[in-house]
Amino acid sequence: MTNLADVGEFGLIERIRRIVEPSNASSRVGPRLEISIGDDAAAWRVLDGSRQVITTDALVEGVHFDLLTTSWQDLGWKSLAVNLSDVAAMGVEPDLAVITLGLPRQTEVEDVERFYEGLTECARRWGVAIVGGDIVASPILTVNVSALGASTAPLLRRSAGQPGDLLAVTGWLGLSGGGLQLLDRGLVSAPDGDAAVLLSAHRRPIPRVAEAQCLVRAGVRCAMDVSDGLRGDAAHICEQSDLSASIEIDRVPLHSALVAALGRDQALGLALDGGEDYELLCAGPAEIVAAAARLMERETGTALHVIGELRTSEREGRLVSLIDASGEEVELAPGSWDHFRA
Amino acid sequence: MTNLADVGEFGLIERIRRIVEPSNASSRVGPRLEISIGDDAAAWRVLDGSRQVITTDALVEGVHFDLLTTSWQDLGWKSLAVNLSDVAAMGVEPDLAVITLGLPRQTEVEDVERFYEGLTECARRWGVAIVGGDIVASPILTVNVSALGASTAPLLRRSAGQPGDLLAVTGWLGLSGGGLQLLDRGLVSAPDGDAAVLLSAHRRPIPRVAEAQCLVRAGVRCAMDVSDGLRGDAAHICEQSDLSASIEIDRVPLHSALVAALGRDQALGLALDGGEDYELLCAGPAEIVAAAARLMERETGTALHVIGELRTSEREGRLVSLIDASGEEVELAPGSWDHFRA
Repeated sequence: MTNLADVGEFGLIERIRRIVEPSNASSRVGPRLEISIGDDAAAWRVLDGSRQVITTDALVEGVHFDLLTTSWQDLGWKSLAVNLSDVAAMGVEPDLAVITLGLPRQTEVEDVERFYEGLTECARRWGVAIVGGDIVASPILTVNVSALGASTAPLLRRSAGQPGDLLAVTGWLGLSGGGLQLLDRGLVSAPDGDAAVLLSAHRRPIPRVAEAQCLVRAGVRCAMDVSDGLRGDAAHICEQSDLSASIEIDRVPLHSALVAALGRDQALGLALDGGEDYELLCAGPAEIVAAAARLMERETGTALHVIGELRTSEREGRLVSLIDASGEEVELAPGSWDHFRA
Repeated sequence: MTNLADVGEFGLIERIRRIVEPSNASSRVGPRLEISIGDDAAAWRVLDGSRQVITTDALVEGVHFDLLTTSWQDLGWKSLAVNLSDVAAMGVEPDLAVITLGLPRQTEVEDVERFYEGLTECARRWGVAIVGGDIVASPILTVNVSALGASTAPLLRRSAGQPGDLLAVTGWLGLSGGGLQLLDRGLVSAPDGDAAVLLSAHRRPIPRVAEAQCLVRAGVRCAMDVSDGLRGDAAHICEQSDLSASIEIDRVPLHSALVAALGRDQALGLALDGGEDYELLCAGPAEIVAAAARLMERETGTALHVIGELRTSEREGRLVSLIDASGEEVELAPGSWDHFRA
């Protein structure tokens, strides 16, 4: 018998894929299935030629959140937001979602209402309908959301990177990880200032829905959302595009609030490996990335920062290299988020 | 503060609906949303005029199953089957599903593979693709499945019952509840005979996908799947159709294996209130129900049993009455499945 920790989350997904995929080909939807296991969301063509996409994501008490430091409203917001981020990262506007709650028997009804208030606030902001779900008894609080959207435009895929593409990321990285560090140190409330920026990023992430549409319209074809940390997620693009990447550490966007609160070294570490940023990481030819940046700045006010490039992958070489301003490779201990590894 | 047990599962869903539905109307998909919270699945129109439906259902270790009496393969099968049943009960053939697993850290990889083998077996039998999911760490084993399908035919709805409609149910009721009773008594293995029929119904329920298509083609418009027990689920049709129902207890289909194993009284109790049958409960005019029964018998071999009728609901009267062959009302203590009530 093999323990989960020995294969890791991604090793396990690969084993599951081997069991599931052979029969997908012969399924009714098989000929119309465009993206299956392994991207931010799955996608298939419906009868009118548009593509439907679906993603699903779970949050578990004690693993992903702690009710001592997370309000029910914020949990509701975040549960939906992280799923909208996955749909957005496919280049698709999210339309609707279904919600499963596993609730301990002693849960107060008013707390469940607060959860749905926060969730509905998020849904309303992005025009998403909450169309159903399931409620079950559970010894611990669990939330599972599935979100869907449809599009007639090309999808953003992890596998669409090309050698020579620039690698770019929206907004700021590491803020959410910084917020979590503050919570771990016992700071649960910060009405304003640097700490408030970090806590808000952690508790109420902003899915980059409009920004992803700018990428699509500018002609970008390769993107994903940064949920596991920049370094780990860039590696996913490399794996699926069969490329390697270099990231210039001086170009990784660090918010002044993060640097002020935790110092530059830790800020960079969190930006590389903290996770839960829900920014968009994309790759494309220089002129297309520049056009996307201009469009995004104009339409959303969000910056798109070029941070590196994709290149042909070398046998035995590492997938993602960090380099300094002079082009020298930098060693920084990795630590991408893997739920089952020690 | 109000405890969940005070409002029950359905009271809680009503409170959630009040928070969520006002903003659904103004959502992007709002004008195309046909069925939201409260049916077996939600439904919305896509661009080509077909309807897409989605359902989601969770199973929690210690609440819905016990790994001492449930194999990983059977758990995989059942997790998908109960969701396919919900899609089928809308009159739609299920096309695809996404799976979320919450796994304790000590889980063996081989067990996860067995789960997916059972799930894939079920998926293959009904031509369903497994297109993605999420895997998270969790102190207890949890499974959440969302399943989807699309259809251009009218949907089967809980709210479509009419006064004078006959009430009919497919197959056999109470078998799954009987299987659970055997497990509770310590009988976990039965290679053949009556006990095997009951255990199989509990562990490997058969979603009535082809049978539901027969209902649609014959012109039936009101149906749902029996997951909470006949009595409770008939009440759901009554509530949503604003009607009451009478059920003739002598016409409730009891499998000989169930009667042989547990006696007629307990068999009837399980048929009324046991739950997890995943049969179809439908209502329609006599000639349409008769046509559906003939079509179903011919195409699937499954019987459609008339068990009662719908009528105008009386103020203060009960939603679902049980009657004997002479038309006299029968009192049998109710016990429909409610996850949060004592």
